[in-house]
Amino acid sequence: MDQTVRSKLLDVSTATLTSVLLKHGFRNTFIGGIKLLNPDAPRMVGPAFTLRYIPAREDLDQSSAFEGRKHPQRVAVETCPAGSILVIDSRKDASAASAGGILVTRLFKRGVAGIVTDGGFRDSPDIAKLPFPAYHSRPSAPTNLIRHHALDVNQPIGCGDVPVYPGDILVGDAEGVVVIPQHIAAQVADEAWEQTQFEDFVMERVSAGDSTHGLYPPEDDARAEYARWRAARKT
Amino acid sequence: MDQTVRSKLLDVSTATLTSVLLKHGFRNTFIGGIKLLNPDAPRMVGPAFTLRYIPAREDLDQSSAFEGRKHPQRVAVETCPAGSILVIDSRKDASAASAGGILVTRLFKRGVAGIVTDGGFRDSPDIAKLPFPAYHSRPSAPTNLIRHHALDVNQPIGCGDVPVYPGDILVGDAEGVVVIPQHIAAQVADEAWEQTQFEDFVMERVSAGDSTHGLYPPEDDARAEYARWRAARKT
Amino acid sequence: MDQTVRSKLLDVSTATLTSVLLKHGFRNTFIGGIKLLNPDAPRMVGPAFTLRYIPAREDLDQSSAFEGRKHPQRVAVETCPAGSILVIDSRKDASAASAGGILVTRLFKRGVAGIVTDGGFRDSPDIAKLPFPAYHSRPSAPTNLIRHHALDVNQPIGCGDVPVYPGDILVGDAEGVVVIPQHIAAQVADEAWEQTQFEDFVMERVSAGDSTHGLYPPEDDARAEYARWRAARKT
Amino acid sequence: MDQTVRSKLLDVSTATLTSVLLKHGFRNTFIGGIKLLNPDAPRMVGPAFTLRYIPAREDLDQSSAFEGRKHPQRVAVETCPAGSILVIDSRKDASAASAGGILVTRLFKRGVAGIVTDGGFRDSPDIAKLPFPAYHSRPSAPTNLIRHHALDVNQPIGCGDVPVYPGDILVGDAEGVVVIPQHIAAQVADEAWEQTQFEDFVMERVSAGDSTHGLYPPEDDARAEYARWRAARKT
Amino acid sequence: MDQTVRSKLLDVSTATLTSVLLKHGFRNTFIGGIKLLNPDAPRMVGPAFTLRYIPAREDLDQSSAFEGRKHPQRVAVETCPAGSILVIDSRKDASAASAGGILVTRLFKRGVAGIVTDGGFRDSPDIAKLPFPAYHSRPSAPTNLIRHHALDVNQPIGCGDVPVYPGDILVGDAEGVVVIPQHIAAQVADEAWEQTQFEDFVMERVSAGDSTHGLYPPEDDARAEYARWRAARKT
Amino acid sequence: MDQTVRSKLLDVSTATLTSVLLKHGFRNTFIGGIKLLNPDAPRMVGPAFTLRYIPAREDLDQSSAFEGRKHPQRVAVETCPAGSILVIDSRKDASAASAGGILVTRLFKRGVAGIVTDGGFRDSPDIAKLPFPAYHSRPSAPTNLIRHHALDVNQPIGCGDVPVYPGDILVGDAEGVVVIPQHIAAQVADEAWEQTQFEDFVMERVSAGDSTHGLYPPEDDARAEYARWRAARKT
Repeated sequence: MDQTVRSKLLDVSTATLTSVLLKHGFRNTFIGGIKLLNPDAPRMVGPAFTLRYIPAREDLDQSSAFEGRKHPQRVAVETCPAGSILVIDSRKDASAASAGGILVTRLFKRGVAGIVTDGGFRDSPDIAKLPFPAYHSRPSAPTNLIRHHALDVNQPIGCGDVPVYPGDILVGDAEGVVVIPQHIAAQVADEAWEQTQFEDFVMERVSAGDSTHGLYPPEDDARAEYARWRAARKT
Repeated sequence: MDQTVRSKLLDVSTATLTSVLLKHGFRNTFIGGIKLLNPDAPRMVGPAFTLRYIPAREDLDQSSAFEGRKHPQRVAVETCPAGSILVIDSRKDASAASAGGILVTRLFKRGVAGIVTDGGFRDSPDIAKLPFPAYHSRPSAPTNLIRHHALDVNQPIGCGDVPVYPGDILVGDAEGVVVIPQHIAAQVADEAWEQTQFEDFVMERVSAGDSTHGLYPPEDDARAEYARWRAARKT
Repeated sequence: MDQTVRSKLLDVSTATLTSVLLKHGFRNTFIGGIKLLNPDAPRMVGPAFTLRYIPAREDLDQSSAFEGRKHPQRVAVETCPAGSILVIDSRKDASAASAGGILVTRLFKRGVAGIVTDGGFRDSPDIAKLPFPAYHSRPSAPTNLIRHHALDVNQPIGCGDVPVYPGDILVGDAEGVVVIPQHIAAQVADEAWEQTQFEDFVMERVSAGDSTHGLYPPEDDARAEYARWRAARKT
Repeated sequence: MDQTVRSKLLDVSTATLTSVLLKHGFRNTFIGGIKLLNPDAPRMVGPAFTLRYIPAREDLDQSSAFEGRKHPQRVAVETCPAGSILVIDSRKDASAASAGGILVTRLFKRGVAGIVTDGGFRDSPDIAKLPFPAYHSRPSAPTNLIRHHALDVNQPIGCGDVPVYPGDILVGDAEGVVVIPQHIAAQVADEAWEQTQFEDFVMERVSAGDSTHGLYPPEDDARAEYARWRAARKT
Repeated sequence: MDQTVRSKLLDVSTATLTSVLLKHGFRNTFIGGIKLLNPDAPRMVGPAFTLRYIPAREDLDQSSAFEGRKHPQRVAVETCPAGSILVIDSRKDASAASAGGILVTRLFKRGVAGIVTDGGFRDSPDIAKLPFPAYHSRPSAPTNLIRHHALDVNQPIGCGDVPVYPGDILVGDAEGVVVIPQHIAAQVADEAWEQTQFEDFVMERVSAGDSTHGLYPPEDDARAEYARWRAARKT
Repeated sequence: MDQTVRSKLLDVSTATLTSVLLKHGFRNTFIGGIKLLNPDAPRMVGPAFTLRYIPAREDLDQSSAFEGRKHPQRVAVETCPAGSILVIDSRKDASAASAGGILVTRLFKRGVAGIVTDGGFRDSPDIAKLPFPAYHSRPSAPTNLIRHHALDVNQPIGCGDVPVYPGDILVGDAEGVVVIPQHIAAQVADEAWEQTQFEDFVMERVSAGDSTHGLYPPEDDARAEYARWRAARKT
């Protein structure tokens, strides 16, 4: 993905992004019910590479399913491009694991930018120690095929009630994960970056003791003050 | 589908079917959280024809999406074969409708054998009056595209936490819906039909005042008595 | 309320109303998680008169709270205007009753047009026999003040996650209840009534065996046919 | 159980009983989340005979568990005294059946007064046709031992978050089921029966058009009028 | 608020407070489903200043709603008295934010004693770094007006199923938040402080290896020993 | 319990254990919905000693219930053997505490190996500081007898939807808790320990950059390499 877009998105919060997306008419962009395992992970930005699970069936989802090299979960782990984010539709079911420590380590080593599931990870204490952003709903020790059948790779999915199309840009911080439709990602990055400047200004003023009245949202005086602040900062 | 299989399945309950499926190792076959709208509908038996929804996205899921003849929901309604059952993966989300009265009527007129969603129907009072088996979780007036994006037709899906592969045989009665993997449908139909004879015998005895001890499950005496009952019935 | 608006709204379904409201930008208008107790009740149309509950507190919510004539629940029952609908914000909590058979009968006798709660009613089998539309989530025998404290009358509330302002027009059918903002009620009634004509036409065609392709939504031919059908019907 | 107590309890509603129990300090007496399968069943009154389930374990809960005559579920069905009510602690889990049509029919034939589970029944359409009160949360076709292990009979249990001790008196109507501690059942029956007379009086007045103000709760005039009404009724 | 009361409440746990409140007949005092964002925040004690949200409506809850100085959320932030606690009724809905980093910082700078919502905060990673007690259910990036409409300030509300009247005393520790009715706050503070002395004594004995039998609750010997311990401590 | 079994179980993860248990046919072994309070606690391994709660009843569950030395909760705390784990069936209800800081400290001092409830603890911030593994669903300040009645000790129970028989071996790590049926604990410990060696080998290879294809699950080359690695490690 474009490096300017990427670097701007690394500087903005998911909260700011949801506000900008709302202005573009997108209300449902924040993946619900998940959290970051490792608060020390780097910020997560990258295009979505998806994996879809349906409920397991006892005759198909035996341990032998992982043999060979065509099981979609393993295919996804070995083919998700570096810089992309593996997003798994686990139907919000964390009663068995979406993935575990070995596969997440493999993604990390391959240069993938992060992993997101609306289910749960096993080996979550190990994953929490990797310098790699991983989001899930809660720890889940039971092995994947007790509940999940990996079906296909890189199709549109739902994750935490949000639509995710392959190539959509995901941004994750300590608050959660936002999905930006691919075609507006550059524009959203610009607007969110500008909005972040303004919020930095407001936070500076509020931290100095100013009232929010007239400042947030800004009236004329505050707008003028911000213009000066912003101009000074650019130089 | 085979007419002998079909006619046997029309004679057995979903409760009996789950017991037979358990003997084959299938524990997760009863679609949870749904009910039949119309208690006067005929019993439902037929192969699954599937439709998958993902969460709606505001720019894609406008009213205009229904224009033309390629919207997957409309394609499904017009191409689901007579005798088949349309099964919709609505991600257990009934906050907007999976389908409404006009589309369900069209399915009925086309000879489709039933419709199942793990979401909700709109126009549910009208659907409830059709002599057509329709299963959903609860009434939902809001229009489909507020929450759902129809993505593809006849792919494997989950419905109410049960896996459904195209061609699987669905059986529905007033209790709910069971999914039978296609490759064992004939055998399951045979076994369930035989099991039903035995349960009819047991019910006859219990209704006549017999104890369940020694009868259900049967010990030697009851087995012998059943053999006579069964033999007499065949003639 | 205006009798033309009322009579049009008596002729349209809640499903159609949600579609019309969506065109006006309102997505959240269908009160979730409630059902009609009595399928034989008349259709429900009328302006909202609201009552707000907060959680009960043991020292305030004793039986003696009902003494005198100022308890807000009793005030609401005795002052809700004839033709209006009493809408109760029970915080979606049906662990104790929102109201019972005597109070609902009193509302009915006073000419009130219906009652809606996102909690539950007690004496629900009796209420179900009144020719009076009453909507709740589920039966709840425990007396009101175990869980609820009636606080104020005719303030804006939430009911089943939908905002309800006093004077908003509520419409209820066997599917559920829709809330129409007061200022657009007349326009919505007109549009929904027209839309209902079109849907009647479509249903007539589909019941006669027509495909939905080209008809729903209509292409040019269907539009022309509808124009003729509509013109004929008017005369 | 005492026949006077029984006959009084047959005449009062679960709603009235919860109010009387509250006066005795009991707030948690209405079993939540269950409903009556058959609206045409007789009213249910009788002492509790309990059965406790814990989660199933794959090695213990095989079909063979039902062989012999010592499986606790079968023991409960064959030993629950006539006139008593079988109450099952299913941990509010209806993903597999608490019991099915044959066992419920056997209970009915044995003169048992009803059955209550906070799980679900299989063969529920058949059970719904018996003239026998049966309460559950929802239909559940899968066989019992997929999820439940019957452990012991006639121990104190929880059912729908309400404590049930063997011998407690259960009363069920179309609204639900109330549990009355055994030692106060006679007194509660008396008070509820008197309270019902008063509510009948109030309902008569409200149906005739009276205001609830001064009547419900009664002020001096209404109290005097009720005394006359009550005296007249006794003769 | 009274400084002796305040300082006693700073020394007792929410667990001890719920026990004392139970003795006064209050069972429902612990706000459910929320947690403290910042474990390093000071203990929270202060009177409640409330804010009520109802569900948002699309025409009213546009960005422009924040303009001017009368939006109730902004009014609450600028007028909540120093030393008070802002308590928000978000209807337990965290699908959009109750407030964000700038507003919470403003409250902190104004000397407010804490903030509690039964919804979620946005900018939660920033809020977690403030030395300011903030309680919510989970992080929520989406902006407030997608789901919430701020209606009024300092009215009685429910928060996490607990009633909160303006002026009630809230106490928060790492376990959660307790609401003390205003009129008994001084007495509860006294009793809880005394109870805490006793629990410190018990914990000292248990940590030294004593059995809880005879100690917790205390029998005569333990009571005497406590009296000596307590007397010694006072000097 | 056997010290070799114990020491092997101290070296394996709950994730690995669920995989080994699945091979033995056990799918439901991971206690759902609970978490470890103190990440610095030692690993937890030991046999289950159980305590069962049913819902509280107002007349029985008064403070005086704790007097004397026979209250089952106190009996459990004083009699749970050193090295065992106290497992409480709280019916997944955390609206009141399963236990508090004093009792958990007493268990710790008595040499008990850990405590697990599917409800919540009060004084949870204190418990979190003990070097003692304690698992619950969420903090809960309200005192036990508001919701729970301790009924009996060391009977089979359910905990977080998993069956627990007295003597079953529980293993807890930072991910959660697994229940191993007593009769297969030694064999499961052996197999899990061997499986852990293999997973360590795989993790070493993946961390060095190897693909998972052919390695996990292993094909012939990887199997040979592992045999060498394993042989080398043993020496």
